[in-house]
Amino acid sequence: MKQFMDKDFMLYNETAKKLFHEYSEDMPLIDYHCHISQKEIFENRRFNNIAEIWLGGKNPDGSYFGDHYKWRLMRSNGVDEELVTGDADPYDKFLAFTQTLEMAIGNPMYHWCNLELKKYFGITEPLTMENAKEIWDKTQDMLQNDPSLTVRGIIEKSNVKYIGTTDDPIDSLEYHEKILNDPDIKFMVRPSFRPDKAINIQKDGFLDYIKKLAASVGKDDLDSIEDIMDALDQRVDYFKAHGARATDHGLDYVPYEKCTIQEADQIFKKAKEGKKLTKEEVDKYQTTLLLHLGRKYHKENFAMEIHYSCTRNVNKRMFDLEGPDTGYDMIAKSNCGDQLAAFLSDLDQTNELPKTILFSLDHNDFNLIGTCMGAFQSTEVPSKIQMGAAWWFLDSRDGMEEQMRSLANLGLLGNFVGMLTDSRSFLSYTRHDYFRRIMCNLIGTWVENGEYPNNEESLKKIVQGISYNNAARYFNID
Amino acid sequence: MKQFMDKDFMLYNETAKKLFHEYSEDMPLIDYHCHISQKEIFENRRFNNIAEIWLGGKNPDGSYFGDHYKWRLMRSNGVDEELVTGDADPYDKFLAFTQTLEMAIGNPMYHWCNLELKKYFGITEPLTMENAKEIWDKTQDMLQNDPSLTVRGIIEKSNVKYIGTTDDPIDSLEYHEKILNDPDIKFMVRPSFRPDKAINIQKDGFLDYIKKLAASVGKDDLDSIEDIMDALDQRVDYFKAHGARATDHGLDYVPYEKCTIQEADQIFKKAKEGKKLTKEEVDKYQTTLLLHLGRKYHKENFAMEIHYSCTRNVNKRMFDLEGPDTGYDMIAKSNCGDQLAAFLSDLDQTNELPKTILFSLDHNDFNLIGTCMGAFQSTEVPSKIQMGAAWWFLDSRDGMEEQMRSLANLGLLGNFVGMLTDSRSFLSYTRHDYFRRIMCNLIGTWVENGEYPNNEESLKKIVQGISYNNAARYFNID
Amino acid sequence: MKQFMDKDFMLYNETAKKLFHEYSEDMPLIDYHCHISQKEIFENRRFNNIAEIWLGGKNPDGSYFGDHYKWRLMRSNGVDEELVTGDADPYDKFLAFTQTLEMAIGNPMYHWCNLELKKYFGITEPLTMENAKEIWDKTQDMLQNDPSLTVRGIIEKSNVKYIGTTDDPIDSLEYHEKILNDPDIKFMVRPSFRPDKAINIQKDGFLDYIKKLAASVGKDDLDSIEDIMDALDQRVDYFKAHGARATDHGLDYVPYEKCTIQEADQIFKKAKEGKKLTKEEVDKYQTTLLLHLGRKYHKENFAMEIHYSCTRNVNKRMFDLEGPDTGYDMIAKSNCGDQLAAFLSDLDQTNELPKTILFSLDHNDFNLIGTCMGAFQSTEVPSKIQMGAAWWFLDSRDGMEEQMRSLANLGLLGNFVGMLTDSRSFLSYTRHDYFRRIMCNLIGTWVENGEYPNNEESLKKIVQGISYNNAARYFNID
Repeated sequence: MKQFMDKDFMLYNETAKKLFHEYSEDMPLIDYHCHISQKEIFENRRFNNIAEIWLGGKNPDGSYFGDHYKWRLMRSNGVDEELVTGDADPYDKFLAFTQTLEMAIGNPMYHWCNLELKKYFGITEPLTMENAKEIWDKTQDMLQNDPSLTVRGIIEKSNVKYIGTTDDPIDSLEYHEKILNDPDIKFMVRPSFRPDKAINIQKDGFLDYIKKLAASVGKDDLDSIEDIMDALDQRVDYFKAHGARATDHGLDYVPYEKCTIQEADQIFKKAKEGKKLTKEEVDKYQTTLLLHLGRKYHKENFAMEIHYSCTRNVNKRMFDLEGPDTGYDMIAKSNCGDQLAAFLSDLDQTNELPKTILFSLDHNDFNLIGTCMGAFQSTEVPSKIQMGAAWWFLDSRDGMEEQMRSLANLGLLGNFVGMLTDSRSFLSYTRHDYFRRIMCNLIGTWVENGEYPNNEESLKKIVQGISYNNAARYFNID
Repeated sequence: MKQFMDKDFMLYNETAKKLFHEYSEDMPLIDYHCHISQKEIFENRRFNNIAEIWLGGKNPDGSYFGDHYKWRLMRSNGVDEELVTGDADPYDKFLAFTQTLEMAIGNPMYHWCNLELKKYFGITEPLTMENAKEIWDKTQDMLQNDPSLTVRGIIEKSNVKYIGTTDDPIDSLEYHEKILNDPDIKFMVRPSFRPDKAINIQKDGFLDYIKKLAASVGKDDLDSIEDIMDALDQRVDYFKAHGARATDHGLDYVPYEKCTIQEADQIFKKAKEGKKLTKEEVDKYQTTLLLHLGRKYHKENFAMEIHYSCTRNVNKRMFDLEGPDTGYDMIAKSNCGDQLAAFLSDLDQTNELPKTILFSLDHNDFNLIGTCMGAFQSTEVPSKIQMGAAWWFLDSRDGMEEQMRSLANLGLLGNFVGMLTDSRSFLSYTRHDYFRRIMCNLIGTWVENGEYPNNEESLKKIVQGISYNNAARYFNID
Repeated sequence: MKQFMDKDFMLYNETAKKLFHEYSEDMPLIDYHCHISQKEIFENRRFNNIAEIWLGGKNPDGSYFGDHYKWRLMRSNGVDEELVTGDADPYDKFLAFTQTLEMAIGNPMYHWCNLELKKYFGITEPLTMENAKEIWDKTQDMLQNDPSLTVRGIIEKSNVKYIGTTDDPIDSLEYHEKILNDPDIKFMVRPSFRPDKAINIQKDGFLDYIKKLAASVGKDDLDSIEDIMDALDQRVDYFKAHGARATDHGLDYVPYEKCTIQEADQIFKKAKEGKKLTKEEVDKYQTTLLLHLGRKYHKENFAMEIHYSCTRNVNKRMFDLEGPDTGYDMIAKSNCGDQLAAFLSDLDQTNELPKTILFSLDHNDFNLIGTCMGAFQSTEVPSKIQMGAAWWFLDSRDGMEEQMRSLANLGLLGNFVGMLTDSRSFLSYTRHDYFRRIMCNLIGTWVENGEYPNNEESLKKIVQGISYNNAARYFNID
């Protein structure tokens, strides 16, 4: 029996161990897509205790911060919302979470939590109800006093080279500027451009948002789709000036319904008048804007991230109580492969297809994506179109292995840009460690089985590539 | 090489063996969803030979009994229908099945049959054409003479604590009453409420059924949807009085098309006039009735089982000859995730969402269900919303492993209510044994690999929970 | 660590090795579906170098020949099209491909190429940039001079018993006749009937094609759908007279929209007038013709191959440059399970359902197909309806294992007709070797684990069946 989560955790043969420990473990990491707060980085926040950094809670303005992955598990164990996102005592919350964890056998959360305790707090015993008090005390003490456990300390300890935050086009990027100007911050923190609110013409708040977007470029309002395009272009430029390299698009599905600018403009005007749009109209507006943005991204050498197949806020009762991003989303099935291909083809026809990373939250789409991307590669960068890593609900050993196998079967695993955390927690960098172990084990097993030569140079190149170098090349990080 | 199907069958490491033999094997079992006959339990039927109990045949009324899983395999081997469901000599049928089994390498039927021969007849040699005669003779003798091989004997030998049969609301539950009143029957046999015929307004025979439903509550006819609701409520009460704890809904897909009671009532009246309904109308009627029933179930603490993604009776020629449930169904793809979520959310908004077990016959839905259920948990019982076990066409090692991995990745495997047989045969309790081995092997492998601590108390709790205790808690069986 | 791709490649236990080496490796092979050129077989073409046989190039008429599987990988590595399908120096192309291969860890192409180097050229070192020149020289010399490396030599060395080419109904079958009349050719080369162009009424070129089809039966034009049916029937007869046993239908999805012959005829006439058809009209025309052909195939004992879930030519820019079959297709999702079943049921109702092999390019369909086919078996041949092997984008270890597991779980793996290459390259017969290793390893593992008896007779029958005998029985090849 292997020791519980020892240094060779998830590494099941000698080659896997060697690949991980010699080539992967010590590589810096690029977290090119996450949701952590640049403000907290700049202010170098400290957390009071493990409940705060793990489970979060309510902000003074009533919104929630913290990790909805953990909240879902607690609710699945029948834990009262008071102990999940409510005002219960932090220690009681921690106990309720600890009790939940016992039932979470096989869940990546079980591994992440114990990896975090080990890496950041030096705790090698698995967390149980028996040692919960002891672990609470130790982590509280360290979080409050250990200089390496401030936000910046955690990031440095994690060997992070680059953090790509997720930002709205209207964001002032004030904290990004402050970080850029702070010589004490050695790692890179750069914004990513996420214009979902400008795309989602069908959602509540769109017109309010358009006013804010106008304000961000010094206007009172935007009166046409050309105005919107122009405003977004200006904001892309602004983001680029602040070092952005990537964008992010969260779509229910990938639309492709071509129309003229004039028609898209009429649809926008109809929305401005408060009229309800048909699905076809929504698709036309979105397609027009997405194509425009795609071309702009290509010009600015931004990578376009597209993720889809998610239905959000499915529990209406809880949405009314807690709002979005509180753990009430689910995987959707979509059937937009043809639209996705048509969208990429449209951009490709004029050689304006940007670097693109395609994520579906539905693992049944991996092969579809794996074959679609193969039709749109180019000489600009190896594997310009990428199949995104298994993330969010798929961020498990099974999800990651399936994604890497699909990519290996249908494309070039050796060019994969690898892992992102999509995290809302500063301790989540262990997800890169988790990913690298699984990747090294997969490759190591092939080598052990005689399915790929035991060629040290090639293996080093591939493993270091997937761990760091490919993303550095792809996102122009040196 | 491991011995063929010995005591450690499907158990590939020491922890798996220990978990199964020490914590799982001897636990009683709860078969909360099956199709066996309460009449045969009460009458303590004997079978004449292995062909009769395995392959069944035609009832005096021309309908078929027996195991369409086996019939499908025989047809796949080119066996004539005469030897499948026809009037051929039982021994010849048994031979034709034995010959088929040789080609069924990797099929769970191969394992089930040999597990059944071992458990109930003490036969440890695999069934082949060479020993078929010997096995025929031995099993015939035992079935006709061994006191432990009556229906009740088999159930007792199988350590069954609770059987949930599947019953129409109009069922008199006469045999359930007789069983309740028979002090010799130590195990529990309780009805489950399956009102499909009242839901399926679009199917042939609906109006006839409504008359029968009326009769079951002492009326001539039901004249409004309120009447139907009232009749079903009365029958739920009647079932509850007979110890029912669960319901069963077989849906092609989960509908969600909200309308007023008045509109649903008009749709019902249109159907009564013999007019054809649109899909939208059918969905509206069904949604209205399902929401009503969901609330009633919540009030009575019934668990609501929903299974979908099946297309039935696809071979028209054979349907005309043999009728339903004769082995001509198939897996369908559905795209009703959003409707499913909206249906659960509707019930949840008034805190009237019952315990719910979600089954899809399409394994591609596991992750979708795994994320959907996470949005609707509550404090009523741990993991109130469950991902149902891999059953019917998915009732294989691969299906079960995928279901448990999906559940483990996205929820709490430790709270899983575990296996059901969905069986039409009294020997099928070995499917619980099969499931438990696969479950113990999965968990044991994680422990051996250092992915979960070798903590005896936790492992015992989890394994005994999935084997029996969780279902006992969920269905209030003591 | 196992040796790199040695004689026990992909065989991970003793039983697997025994099954492969004793029962499978030396069996002849039936390649019942491929795209190689009968002309090149008859002319016994020689290739100048490994680039030509692996990567192909442009024909004098500007069309492309060669292996788009390899082209896709090269493009994924950022290789310029000049080096992929362009006019670059063959050796430079070979180097660009070799460099790509290093990144293709886990890709079946990596294995195929090295299997081909080993089997046909005796090269046991993996191909790398270091030994590329040496391998270039050696393979060039052998291709130009070794008598066993002509097209016929390669086929004989590969122990091929039967090749089923893919041919249009209008094909003269001139080279098939020449091959039949050449006593030096010991292996069978027979046409397969692929009438896609007569089915695809919605595609460009349909009316031109109808004229060519008319010409093939000595007419000026076809004026009704009955004329088309009659012409196709005549061509089926012609193909049968040339030894055809199989057909091939490449469908985006399986349609089923029943109408009268008269209605289908009007739709055809509408198309003839150059009018655009609705999707419903297209489906009606196609359904009518497919049902007619199905009945004809049944009468002539042709096997009907249906493959679907593919979207072709998704990159418009490259389609305009290079035309079809150049590596710009992708997996589609379809939802035509009910239509597929209805189509089979329609043919079955009059006992005119032919032998049918169902392929979906979407692995998410395996279980659906596995259950659909179980509803339409008959006594004509064991497993008359087959789940086709994992091919094209699924032609990997993962794809093949999933397909065989699905088939084993839901049907009779022992009756599987096994592998096809779908190849455009004469060296691709190693894909049968690859398949057989994976199949023997799967079965061997079950036996080693005690899940199937170590019964030599049964295992031999099953393994030889899947390797060769089942296909020989199914396609009447003796």
